[in-house]
Amino acid sequence: MPQAVYGPGKTPAQCAGIVAELLAAGASPVILTRAGDAQVEASLLDNPDGVVTPRGGPAPALSTVAWRRRDERPARVLLITAGTADLPVAAECRATLDAFGLRPELRPDCGVAGLHRLLASLDELVEADAVVVVAGMEGALPSLVAGVTPAAVIAVPTSSGYGSSFEGMTALLAMHASCAAGIVVVGIDNGFGAACAVARMLH
Amino acid sequence: MPQAVYGPGKTPAQCAGIVAELLAAGASPVILTRAGDAQVEASLLDNPDGVVTPRGGPAPALSTVAWRRRDERPARVLLITAGTADLPVAAECRATLDAFGLRPELRPDCGVAGLHRLLASLDELVEADAVVVVAGMEGALPSLVAGVTPAAVIAVPTSSGYGSSFEGMTALLAMHASCAAGIVVVGIDNGFGAACAVARMLH
Amino acid sequence: MPQAVYGPGKTPAQCAGIVAELLAAGASPVILTRAGDAQVEASLLDNPDGVVTPRGGPAPALSTVAWRRRDERPARVLLITAGTADLPVAAECRATLDAFGLRPELRPDCGVAGLHRLLASLDELVEADAVVVVAGMEGALPSLVAGVTPAAVIAVPTSSGYGSSFEGMTALLAMHASCAAGIVVVGIDNGFGAACAVARMLH
Amino acid sequence: MPQAVYGPGKTPAQCAGIVAELLAAGASPVILTRAGDAQVEASLLDNPDGVVTPRGGPAPALSTVAWRRRDERPARVLLITAGTADLPVAAECRATLDAFGLRPELRPDCGVAGLHRLLASLDELVEADAVVVVAGMEGALPSLVAGVTPAAVIAVPTSSGYGSSFEGMTALLAMHASCAAGIVVVGIDNGFGAACAVARMLH
Amino acid sequence: MPQAVYGPGKTPAQCAGIVAELLAAGASPVILTRAGDAQVEASLLDNPDGVVTPRGGPAPALSTVAWRRRDERPARVLLITAGTADLPVAAECRATLDAFGLRPELRPDCGVAGLHRLLASLDELVEADAVVVVAGMEGALPSLVAGVTPAAVIAVPTSSGYGSSFEGMTALLAMHASCAAGIVVVGIDNGFGAACAVARMLH
Amino acid sequence: MPQAVYGPGKTPAQCAGIVAELLAAGASPVILTRAGDAQVEASLLDNPDGVVTPRGGPAPALSTVAWRRRDERPARVLLITAGTADLPVAAECRATLDAFGLRPELRPDCGVAGLHRLLASLDELVEADAVVVVAGMEGALPSLVAGVTPAAVIAVPTSSGYGSSFEGMTALLAMHASCAAGIVVVGIDNGFGAACAVARMLH
Amino acid sequence: MPQAVYGPGKTPAQCAGIVAELLAAGASPVILTRAGDAQVEASLLDNPDGVVTPRGGPAPALSTVAWRRRDERPARVLLITAGTADLPVAAECRATLDAFGLRPELRPDCGVAGLHRLLASLDELVEADAVVVVAGMEGALPSLVAGVTPAAVIAVPTSSGYGSSFEGMTALLAMHASCAAGIVVVGIDNGFGAACAVARMLH
Amino acid sequence: MPQAVYGPGKTPAQCAGIVAELLAAGASPVILTRAGDAQVEASLLDNPDGVVTPRGGPAPALSTVAWRRRDERPARVLLITAGTADLPVAAECRATLDAFGLRPELRPDCGVAGLHRLLASLDELVEADAVVVVAGMEGALPSLVAGVTPAAVIAVPTSSGYGSSFEGMTALLAMHASCAAGIVVVGIDNGFGAACAVARMLH
Repeated sequence: MPQAVYGPGKTPAQCAGIVAELLAAGASPVILTRAGDAQVEASLLDNPDGVVTPRGGPAPALSTVAWRRRDERPARVLLITAGTADLPVAAECRATLDAFGLRPELRPDCGVAGLHRLLASLDELVEADAVVVVAGMEGALPSLVAGVTPAAVIAVPTSSGYGSSFEGMTALLAMHASCAAGIVVVGIDNGFGAACAVARMLH
Repeated sequence: MPQAVYGPGKTPAQCAGIVAELLAAGASPVILTRAGDAQVEASLLDNPDGVVTPRGGPAPALSTVAWRRRDERPARVLLITAGTADLPVAAECRATLDAFGLRPELRPDCGVAGLHRLLASLDELVEADAVVVVAGMEGALPSLVAGVTPAAVIAVPTSSGYGSSFEGMTALLAMHASCAAGIVVVGIDNGFGAACAVARMLH
Repeated sequence: MPQAVYGPGKTPAQCAGIVAELLAAGASPVILTRAGDAQVEASLLDNPDGVVTPRGGPAPALSTVAWRRRDERPARVLLITAGTADLPVAAECRATLDAFGLRPELRPDCGVAGLHRLLASLDELVEADAVVVVAGMEGALPSLVAGVTPAAVIAVPTSSGYGSSFEGMTALLAMHASCAAGIVVVGIDNGFGAACAVARMLH
Repeated sequence: MPQAVYGPGKTPAQCAGIVAELLAAGASPVILTRAGDAQVEASLLDNPDGVVTPRGGPAPALSTVAWRRRDERPARVLLITAGTADLPVAAECRATLDAFGLRPELRPDCGVAGLHRLLASLDELVEADAVVVVAGMEGALPSLVAGVTPAAVIAVPTSSGYGSSFEGMTALLAMHASCAAGIVVVGIDNGFGAACAVARMLH
Repeated sequence: MPQAVYGPGKTPAQCAGIVAELLAAGASPVILTRAGDAQVEASLLDNPDGVVTPRGGPAPALSTVAWRRRDERPARVLLITAGTADLPVAAECRATLDAFGLRPELRPDCGVAGLHRLLASLDELVEADAVVVVAGMEGALPSLVAGVTPAAVIAVPTSSGYGSSFEGMTALLAMHASCAAGIVVVGIDNGFGAACAVARMLH
Repeated sequence: MPQAVYGPGKTPAQCAGIVAELLAAGASPVILTRAGDAQVEASLLDNPDGVVTPRGGPAPALSTVAWRRRDERPARVLLITAGTADLPVAAECRATLDAFGLRPELRPDCGVAGLHRLLASLDELVEADAVVVVAGMEGALPSLVAGVTPAAVIAVPTSSGYGSSFEGMTALLAMHASCAAGIVVVGIDNGFGAACAVARMLH
Repeated sequence: MPQAVYGPGKTPAQCAGIVAELLAAGASPVILTRAGDAQVEASLLDNPDGVVTPRGGPAPALSTVAWRRRDERPARVLLITAGTADLPVAAECRATLDAFGLRPELRPDCGVAGLHRLLASLDELVEADAVVVVAGMEGALPSLVAGVTPAAVIAVPTSSGYGSSFEGMTALLAMHASCAAGIVVVGIDNGFGAACAVARMLH
Repeated sequence: MPQAVYGPGKTPAQCAGIVAELLAAGASPVILTRAGDAQVEASLLDNPDGVVTPRGGPAPALSTVAWRRRDERPARVLLITAGTADLPVAAECRATLDAFGLRPELRPDCGVAGLHRLLASLDELVEADAVVVVAGMEGALPSLVAGVTPAAVIAVPTSSGYGSSFEGMTALLAMHASCAAGIVVVGIDNGFGAACAVARMLH
C-alpha cells in the first residue's frame, strides 16, 4: 500500500515534512491528496520528483501528488462516472491507480442520461478485471454495472448533488442496499481508497 | 378523492363504524386499508358490498377493502415492481386504482435481475398515461423507468430489504435524489397514496 | 423531457460547452439551472438564444436559462408558495414550465398567515390541471391544498426556514406523512423537478 | 404539579408501592400513567380511591389512574385531535386535566378530512384559555389552530401514522418549524405533559 | 399575535416593503427579526417609528425591530439564560415581549456554574406568571426550573455549544425528554416564538 | 480487567462453554452479563462458584453472574440513579464492581423529583473516589453531580424513558454536551462498562 | 453471479417456486438465504439437491441453501470474525463461498480480546488472496487486518452488539471512515454479498 | 475544577471581562479555550499572567490561555494521538492538564499506520495512571490501548477526517460501542474536558 498524506488542515510545511519523512522511511509510493497550490509547491520544493494531477472541479484548485510511482503493469481497470460533478473524485482515483502502475480507462458521463455510453462499453465491462463506479445523487449506477459484468465492482459515492443527496449519504446507503450481488463500497468521495482497493485485488 | 380508513390500531367495531359513517356522509368510494381478518369481517357485516383484495406477503394477512367503486374508464396505467417483496404494496395500489375505475397492468419483478422484463415493456412504457414504480432496497428502478418514458412516473419506496435499507428510508431518499428529471415520490409503502396521485392526474 | 445542466460546481466554460453539446445532440429544450452571472454570460456567448430568468432571493444572484423553449399550450397550472423565502424555487419552477410551453399562474404567500389568499383562489384550485405547492418550514400547505382540489398536487419542500427546519428535511418528511391522499413530493428546493413532473402529467 | 408514576417497565407491586409512598409523602394529586390491568389492580388494592380512565386504542389495554383529584374549577380548555389514532393520547391528557380540576371540551377528528369540524368550533377557539392539539402524521393542525385563536396552543405530536411519520418525530419537527407564532410543543405522545403544561399556565 | 418578518434571505427593500404592507394592513405590532444593518436602515427609512434592539453576540450584527408596540401591562415574566452564548436569543425574546407590553426580568448565567444565581431567584420563580428558560448544550436548566416553580415554563433550546450539541438538537431533545412535568418547548433559537407563547398564555 | 461474556444471542451451552474456557485460560474474574435463567443455570452447572445478581426490572428476568471475584478493598464509590427504571443498569454495575472487590453505596431516585436525596448525600459526594451516575430521559443528573464533587463522574445513559428519549440517545448526547467540566460517558445501558471504568481509575 | 432468493417475508411455496424457476432458467448456482425450517423443507421437496448450511446463533433457526454448487478451485480466502455474535453472518458467507467453489479458512474470535489469534494468523494474512472480516460493535478489526496484509479486505459490519452499536450502523460508518487504505465494505450483516464480492475479485 | 471560558462567539472584551470576574471570584485556575488572537490579546491586557498555548492546526489560529496554574505534581499521564489532525485537540488537552499541575507525555501519530509507535510505548502504557487517546475517523485506537493497559482510558473523538467521519460522530459512536471494557468517552474535540476528567480521577 502507498503511504498517504491527506492535505486539508495541514500547513504547507507540514505536508512537505511528512512527505519527506515517508519517502525516507520506506520504498512505497507516497501520495499527497487534496493538496492546495501552496501545499503542492512546498512539497515539491523539498521532494522534487512528485507527479501532480489536478482534480479539476470548482475552486479551490486541489491536486493529487504522487512520488515514487510503480512501473506500469497490465490490467484492465475501468473507471466509470455518472456525471460531470463526479470527475474530481475520479481524477484522484486515477492518479492513485497510476501510482500503482495501473492505467485505467475512463468512461465518463454514463449516468441515466448517458446510458448509451454505458452500453457502448459493454464488451470492456465484461472483460474488465475491476470496475470503479463513481456516482453521487441516487447512486444507482453500480447496480446497473454489476448486472452486466462478472468483474469486481467498487462503488464510490460522491457528495455531488444537492437537496436530498445529503452530501453523499444517500448514495452511500443506496449502494449498500443494492439488489445487485457483490458490490463493494468505499467512503464518500474516497477516490484514493477505491484505487487502493483495486490495487489490493490485483496485487 | 376516496374516503380512507387506515386499519392498524383500530378495533373491528371502530373500522365498521367509520366505514358506515363515511358511506352515509358522501358519494365517494370508501377504502379500508391494511385491515386484518377480524376488521374485514366486521366491516363487511355492517357494510356488505365491499370488494376485498388481499395484500399477500408475510403474515399477518392484511387486505384492502373498497366500497362504492367507480365504473371502469379508459386509461393506460402501468404498475411496475422491482421484486417479490414489493407485491403487497402493489396490491394495495391496484385495489385502490380499481376503486377509481382504473385498471392498471401489473409488470412484476423488473428490478436489476429482471431488466429484460422492463425492456420487454418498452412500448407500453412509452405509451402509458402514468407509471407507478414500486421498489425497495436502493430504489433505482424509477430512475431507469423515467429515462425511457415521457409519462408521469410515481415512485413508491417500500420497506422491503434489510440492513442498509433502513425500512425504506434509503429508497425514499434515493428516489428524491434521482438524476432523472420529473420523478415524483409518495410515502414509504404508500400504495394507496400512489393510486390517489394517479387518480388526481387523470381526473 | 428537457436536457438539464446543473450549474453549481461547473466552470463557465464547462457550462457553455455542455449546453452547446446538448443543443447539437437533440431537439429538446435545454435548461441551465442555478447559474451564476459568469456561467450565464459564458453560456449565452456560445449559445445565444437562451432566455434568462433570475431566481431572485439572497446573494449570490442565480438564474435559470432556457434554450429552445416549446410553444405555449393551454393548461391550467397553479404555482402556490407559502412565503417570500420560497419564491426563488418557484421562479426556477416557472422558468422550466415556460420552457415546456406551460404558463403557470403564480399565487404567492398563501401560508398560514395568508390563508385568505388561498381561499380567494378556491375556484382556480378546483379547476386546475395541476397545482405545484412550494413550502418550507413545517410544510403544511400541500395538505390544505389537496383538501380542496381534485387536481394533481406536486409538493416542493424548500430549505427556507431555520432551527428545526433542518434545511427542508422537516418539510419533506411532513409532506410524505400528509394525511391528505394523493400528494406527490419532489426533492428539496427542486423547482426544476416539479416543473418536469407537471410536464410529464400533461404530456 | 402532580406526582406521576410511569407504568411501563414496573411490576404491579412496584407501581402500588410508589403510589402509596407518594400519597403518604405529600398532598398533590398522584397519577399513574400507561398502566396495564395488573398494575391498575394492584395499585387500587393498596390505594383504593383512584379514578381509572382507559386510554382506549389498540391492545394491550392501558389506563391512567388518578388519586386525590382537585376540585373542579372554571377554565375553558379545548382538547382537539386530528384523527382516531390520536384519541389514546387525548384520553391520557383529559384524565390528567381532570386531576387538576380542569374539565376540557374534546373536539375529535378535526384533521384535514374534518376541517369543517374545526371551523364549527371557531367561537370556542377564540374564547378558549388554552387549546391542546393532538396530532400525528404531518402535524399540521396546530399551525391552523394557532392562526385562529389568540389562546395558548400546546401541540402534542403523536406516534400514530406510518411510513414517513417516524414514530412521531416528523410531527414533532414540523410543529417546531411551524410558521404560526407562539406554538409550544411537548414530547411525543405526552398527553400527561400537555395537561401539566395547561395546569401551569392556569395555576 | 404580532405580524413577523424574518430577515435572513430578504433584501433590504423586501424587508422595508413587507413591514410597510403589514403596518398598513392591520393594527398589530409588526416585528422584524434577525435583521442586518442594511435591512434595519431600509426598514426604518420607510417605516420610521420602529424600536431597534441589537441581539449582541458574534458578528454579523443583527437586530430585532418592533413597530406599534403595545402599552406596558403588569405581569411577572422571568427570562433566564444558562450562559453568555444564550444572550442573543434572550435579547430577541425580550424585544418581542416588549412589543406585547410585557417587561421581563432577565436573570442571566444561571447554568450549572451559576446555580447560586438561580437559587437567589427562588422567590421570583415561585411567584412568576411565566418563566422563559434559554439554554443550549445539554439543555438541563428547564428541568431544574420546573422543579421549583408552579408557573408555566417555556424552554428555548439554543444552538450555542459545540461538538455533541448538534446545533441545538441535543438541547431540544433533552428538553422534550425532561422528567420534570409540564415543560413546553419552542424551536431552536426561537426567542421570538417563546415571547409569542408567553403572550398567548397571558392574553 | 475481567473477562466478559455478553449473554443475549448465545445459547445456554455457548455461555457455559465460553465461561469455562475463560476460567481455564486466566486468573481474572469472569462475568456473564444479561443472562436469562436458562443461560444462568447452564453456566452454573458447568462452572459452580458463580455469584448471581438479578438485574430486576421488567421481564424477561436477566442476571449478572460473576466468577472468581476479587477480595474487597477500600474505596469510596457512589452509585447514583435518577429513577426506578435505571435500577437494572445500576444492578449490573454494582455486581461488576463487586467482582472487582469494590463495594459501592447505592443512592437511588435522585432525579429532579428527588433532588433532596441528592443534597442529603452531599458529604459523601465531596469525599467520594468515584461517582457513577445512571440516568435516562434528559440525562441532566451528571451535570448536577459534577457541579458538587471534585471526584471522577462516570455518566451512564439509559434507554429508560419514552417518546423523545430515543432509547437513550438523547441522554447520551446531553451528557456529552454537558456544561459541567470533566464528565466522562460510557455506552447506553452499559453498567458493566462503567464498573470497569471505575476499576481502571482505582487500579 | 449466483441467483439469490432472500427468504424473509416469503411463504414456503414462494421460496420453492422461485428456486425452481431460477434453476430452470439458467446454469448458475442458486442460493436461498435466511430461510426458516418450513422454507427449507418446501424448497428441498421441490428442488432436491440443495445443500443446507445452518447459520447458527439465536432462534429462530435460519439456514442458507445452495443448489448447483461449483467445483472447488484453488484460492486462499480467509474469513475472520471479531466475536461469537458474528458467526451467523460468517456462516452465510462461507456457505455462499462454497457455492462458488471457494473454501475459506475460518479464523473466529479475533477481536480485541483475541488479538493473539489474529497475530497467530499473520502468515496466512500476508499470503491470502482475499480476507473477509466480519465485525460488529465498533468495527475496528478491518483497520487492523488491512494494516498487515496487502490482500483485498472486504469488511462486513454486523448488527451484533447493543446500545451505541445502532444495529450495525456504527460499525458500517467506522469501516468507511477507516484510516487504513483500500478497505471495501458491504451492507450490514450481508455475508452473502461479501462472498459474491470475493467471487467477483477472483473470477 | 478550573473555571472555563469558551472563546468562540464572544467579543474580546467579553472574554477579558469574564476572565477577570472568575479570577476575582475564586482561587481555581481559569482557562480560556479556542481563543483567537484578538481575544487572547484583550484577555492578557486585563489579566496579565496567563500562559498561552497555541493549538496549532489550520487557520484561524486559536490558543488556550491558562491563569493561576497549579504546581506540578507527580503523575504518569500519557496523551496519545492517532494522526496529525488530532494534534490541536491534544494541545488543548495538554495545556489544560498543565494548569492542573499534570505534565503528560505526548505520544503522537500512533494510529494504524504508526502502530509500531504504540507498541514502543507499551511499558509506559502499562504503568500509566491515566491515558488520554485522541482519535478521529473510525476511532479504533482507544480499543487497542485499552487492550494493553489496566489504566483509565479517556477517549476523545475528533472531528478530523472527512466523508463518512461525520464531524466526529462516527468516532464517538465507535468509541461507545467498543468491545474493550472500561473505556470512557468525552465530547467531540473536547480536549479540555478530557483533561478535567483526568484531574478528577487523580484529585
